[in-house]
Amino acid sequence: MTYCCALRLEQGMVFISDTRTNAGVDHISVFRKLYTFGIPGERVIVIQASGNLATTQAVIGHIKNQLELNQEPNILSLHTMFEVAELVGRTLKHVIESVTTDTMEQSNYYCSLLVGGQIAGQDMQLYHIYPQGNFICATSDTPYFQIGESKYGKPILDRALSYDMPLDEALRCSLISFASTLRSNVSVGMPLDVLVYHKDTFEIPVGKRIQEDDEYFTKISKQWSDTLKKGLQELPKPTLDYFQ
Amino acid sequence: MTYCCALRLEQGMVFISDTRTNAGVDHISVFRKLYTFGIPGERVIVIQASGNLATTQAVIGHIKNQLELNQEPNILSLHTMFEVAELVGRTLKHVIESVTTDTMEQSNYYCSLLVGGQIAGQDMQLYHIYPQGNFICATSDTPYFQIGESKYGKPILDRALSYDMPLDEALRCSLISFASTLRSNVSVGMPLDVLVYHKDTFEIPVGKRIQEDDEYFTKISKQWSDTLKKGLQELPKPTLDYFQ
Repeated sequence: MTYCCALRLEQGMVFISDTRTNAGVDHISVFRKLYTFGIPGERVIVIQASGNLATTQAVIGHIKNQLELNQEPNILSLHTMFEVAELVGRTLKHVIESVTTDTMEQSNYYCSLLVGGQIAGQDMQLYHIYPQGNFICATSDTPYFQIGESKYGKPILDRALSYDMPLDEALRCSLISFASTLRSNVSVGMPLDVLVYHKDTFEIPVGKRIQEDDEYFTKISKQWSDTLKKGLQELPKPTLDYFQ
Repeated sequence: MTYCCALRLEQGMVFISDTRTNAGVDHISVFRKLYTFGIPGERVIVIQASGNLATTQAVIGHIKNQLELNQEPNILSLHTMFEVAELVGRTLKHVIESVTTDTMEQSNYYCSLLVGGQIAGQDMQLYHIYPQGNFICATSDTPYFQIGESKYGKPILDRALSYDMPLDEALRCSLISFASTLRSNVSVGMPLDVLVYHKDTFEIPVGKRIQEDDEYFTKISKQWSDTLKKGLQELPKPTLDYFQ
């Protein structure tokens, strides 16, 4: 399984992906699920993937192949993020259909993608692309998308995240969402890949890989556990009718 | 969908169930999913259910029917909680098989059950019973079980719950687990049914139904949101390498 989360906020975007893949419990590997494309000063595009690894790699493979062979249209020549989402969606649908045309069977090859970024002269966009190739777009009402094992880490995002939150606070919020998921589900695993994009900079972030022993991540995970335990103890005691 | 959670701790047991059932988004109803049986001074048995409502009601129907007709064995005559779990498991398996013998088709009629309680002279027990009729038993290492929409509310239990925690603190912890789930998933809904059993009392709890406007529950949900937001702000800022 996988957990990927992407935020599109007032000040920029945050992308975090885990790296664990598994086919049964015997085949556990580390694979990057976060890919960057772009032209410095002109466009930044980030793709995150959850689902069948062969499907994911085929989609990314086709996108890179188009670039290497200068085929048109490609992810760096399209005019808008909407067109980029359409291209990625068509590629995903095509890859799945090329494995099998049996629609029941296709679900074994499903993957979901998050595509986010910014092209010069336009606003940032974030899309959640379904295995059928269609997609939805993040808004200020719903400024984040998750794919994969999304449930464990959703409550903290629902309670604390907001569109106008400073980027570093949003980053902390989503790191805690990952810390909670890592603790409750073994199919999501370290290291994590993190990218932060500041609006209108058009700089392709290098990003950071958070390893098991990352000092900052370990520190906030520990502090968060303490916050929750202390917070629970500080809640008022249940009224007597709870014990009747 | 449903969310039920049960704890078996040093000092006693806590059971919480939501009451929302849905068949599609048009058929949303309130049904109790927490049932109590017992003989005051001798035994207390609690059953919680998640899954197909007809299956759930058939299982509870059979158990009550056995009692009304004084059929043996029944839930109040069996000698141990292990035997109670076996009876409930056999009943569940039988109900599902009576709908269809097609094993693929059977999954449409699945339900999962939690069965907990205490019989005089014995320790408290908590069982998680699967649709196949087999079951697992809670221990001091794993003192809680969840059925239904369990993922949203799992991180707080994993971080904060422990076997030797006082009952009222464990109750707060599981109420927060429900508050998080209610907020992130519309298929889990109020009111909630809560039962707290104090070890070796053999008193069948009346229990409490938490309605939408419950003062205590509203208060701790609000305080918990504030705790999380404040806790996030108090986390140290990410190091610069997170933004490269």
